[in-house]
Amino acid sequence: MSESRPYRYASHLACPRCEADYALDSLRQLCACGSPLLVRYDLTRLAATWRPEQLAERPWSLWRYHELLPLAQPEAIVSLGEVVTPLVELPRLGDDMRLPRLVMKDEGLLPTGSFKARGAAVGISRARELGVTHLAMPTNGNAGAAWALYAARAGIQATIAMPEDAPYITRQECSLAGAHLSLVDGLISDAGRQVAGFVAATGVFDASTLKEPYRIEGKKTMGLELAEQLGWQLPDVILYPTGGGVGLIGIYKALQELQAIGWVKGPLPRLVAVQAKGYAPIVRAWQEGARESRFWDQSRTRAFGINVPKALGDFLVLEALYATDGRAIAVSEAAIDWEQRRAAQLEGTFVCPEGAAVLAAARELSTLGEIPADARVVALNTGAGIKYPDDRDLGVPRLAADEALPIPESTTRRPS
Amino acid sequence: MSESRPYRYASHLACPRCEADYALDSLRQLCACGSPLLVRYDLTRLAATWRPEQLAERPWSLWRYHELLPLAQPEAIVSLGEVVTPLVELPRLGDDMRLPRLVMKDEGLLPTGSFKARGAAVGISRARELGVTHLAMPTNGNAGAAWALYAARAGIQATIAMPEDAPYITRQECSLAGAHLSLVDGLISDAGRQVAGFVAATGVFDASTLKEPYRIEGKKTMGLELAEQLGWQLPDVILYPTGGGVGLIGIYKALQELQAIGWVKGPLPRLVAVQAKGYAPIVRAWQEGARESRFWDQSRTRAFGINVPKALGDFLVLEALYATDGRAIAVSEAAIDWEQRRAAQLEGTFVCPEGAAVLAAARELSTLGEIPADARVVALNTGAGIKYPDDRDLGVPRLAADEALPIPESTTRRPS
Repeated sequence: MSESRPYRYASHLACPRCEADYALDSLRQLCACGSPLLVRYDLTRLAATWRPEQLAERPWSLWRYHELLPLAQPEAIVSLGEVVTPLVELPRLGDDMRLPRLVMKDEGLLPTGSFKARGAAVGISRARELGVTHLAMPTNGNAGAAWALYAARAGIQATIAMPEDAPYITRQECSLAGAHLSLVDGLISDAGRQVAGFVAATGVFDASTLKEPYRIEGKKTMGLELAEQLGWQLPDVILYPTGGGVGLIGIYKALQELQAIGWVKGPLPRLVAVQAKGYAPIVRAWQEGARESRFWDQSRTRAFGINVPKALGDFLVLEALYATDGRAIAVSEAAIDWEQRRAAQLEGTFVCPEGAAVLAAARELSTLGEIPADARVVALNTGAGIKYPDDRDLGVPRLAADEALPIPESTTRRPS
Repeated sequence: MSESRPYRYASHLACPRCEADYALDSLRQLCACGSPLLVRYDLTRLAATWRPEQLAERPWSLWRYHELLPLAQPEAIVSLGEVVTPLVELPRLGDDMRLPRLVMKDEGLLPTGSFKARGAAVGISRARELGVTHLAMPTNGNAGAAWALYAARAGIQATIAMPEDAPYITRQECSLAGAHLSLVDGLISDAGRQVAGFVAATGVFDASTLKEPYRIEGKKTMGLELAEQLGWQLPDVILYPTGGGVGLIGIYKALQELQAIGWVKGPLPRLVAVQAKGYAPIVRAWQEGARESRFWDQSRTRAFGINVPKALGDFLVLEALYATDGRAIAVSEAAIDWEQRRAAQLEGTFVCPEGAAVLAAARELSTLGEIPADARVVALNTGAGIKYPDDRDLGVPRLAADEALPIPESTTRRPS
């Protein structure tokens, strides 16, 4: 299939707060007003020339949606093989929580084992295209790991600051990739201040969440894939674990763009932002009906990716919740642990703690009657459980090399 | 596209040693002669009715090759979303080892983070189709993890014995999935004896490597995918880390079947079995020109998946090496560590130690002149590096929350 249409339909950068516009092909961070910038597309022109059937012969990677991505040309792509992640049916777990139409998009199958690969793939590709040679960012682990590895592939230097409590393996990923990594005795907000100081001192590109406009475009592909995998029919509810919130904003942006080009119809799904009770600034803001969140400085959660005391894009997250009749909800640590085990036992899927939080939230909203049993519900598992080893005693018997395996009570012995 | 052709073309089970045949749809373990059994297909009939173009509209998962898989019907599939794993170009690492056409098939993107998901997906699907309700197996970690999780999804009980030195996260996978797991103070060969005793005492299905004929059919899909991804052109060399050897035998079987139905032409690629110097029974056998390996009981390697002192299918591995003008090669622990870091720094890919062993072997064979610079070389990375956290001190600086990030020497400070 030869395509003589443009590779890209991105037109400019726009501020969602003050509505200022910026040219696309210059290196930008925040708007002059301090708000994140978003990429805008010529959706009218795109609607006139792009059809779902044109996707049929394209590779199953996030780059199949290049018309809705910011790269000027395919040669700029920096890829580690970003597969379209599977939409896994969860019939037994769904029945167990009276949501028989529950499905899970499993982001653990991306390179680096988390959805952060999407932001890194598009963010790094675009950074390289714009001439970046060194970037800096704070991280709760997975984003830093993904950006460090994609940066290495692109030949870009990365300076990364990470709380020392972040999942251990992510520091190994950064270190192996050759990033300049520092561990911080503090929160991601502390690491963020350190990165801001570093950027001020050096002029290095600031790749912090939403301080550049392209990471969100990568995250957006979750929404594009989801819509295509559901045959361009929107589900009723999408649940997402929310730390910095870029994934949720990205999905919302994707669905709005698909609506604008006429590929999906009807009301957008209700978007549910899931946090942990130990860290729930978005939930508190939503409960107050606020437009922004306030800094949250107590406590913590095992779902480390959610540990963001105050997200730069909080107002965009809240706007998406209000606009879709969605909501925010916080779940307990006990519910996260229980649901992670339940999912493994009933469905064989080993989700990350953030993914378990989402499943626990679905269960709670079902119990509360806020999601009806016939709803088509999509849960996002943002990463592979294998990135989060847990030191708790698993109660596994230890045998000498010549001992016999214990026979479970339910198993019959052969007559001897 | 409606397809009225059969879903499956498997015809019977055959012994590669004594040539006995067995009916397909009964539960079988080894041949009466003690050899593994292999699934045979009606390749003549398949050649007459199957064309590569018929794959075009099928989902990008290993099930797209169902004509060459043993399931009687699609309803039997137990899936966690087995994506077609990417073939990642490694131009900088390739140049670095004078193999500019080096590519890597990255099996770390499968569910459970390793190629073992292929064997488990097909093995468990087929086990369920044949009525298995409980299975037992020894494992070096990843296979047990994959089988435990797929078994949970299928509602099958799993009893698993694992050396206590196996990667930590794999015991967590087994435990979360609800498997009956035991840790053994010994090698996989000890665990294998324990499983044999358990099977003798209970009559539980023995899912040990090659003691049932279907795991290898799952592994085979690596070869099928590889051939399709290369446009049905065979590469010159395929390197594979070899413990039990099923992956390598599976790739060999896949390529032979594709040859038989006329989808690939010309000589098969040279197959290279990669082991670690601390554990190299196949290499020793190959050096001796032997048809089988001898038990290897000294030493160990960080590439834990290779720790197999004597593989049941060793004669099939060696046959594949001899038949393709391939070879076996052992690499050092230092080379594994160095190559793992090199791959991350040059290409942004975090391979597992077994995958690093394969890349180290490619480098060594290039240096020895055994692989020419213009060869199309495929390296298999069998799992995600994130499954193997490493306690070595990474030398990462630790900062207080109010300290400044160190500025790398190569980075210019802004004039203040």
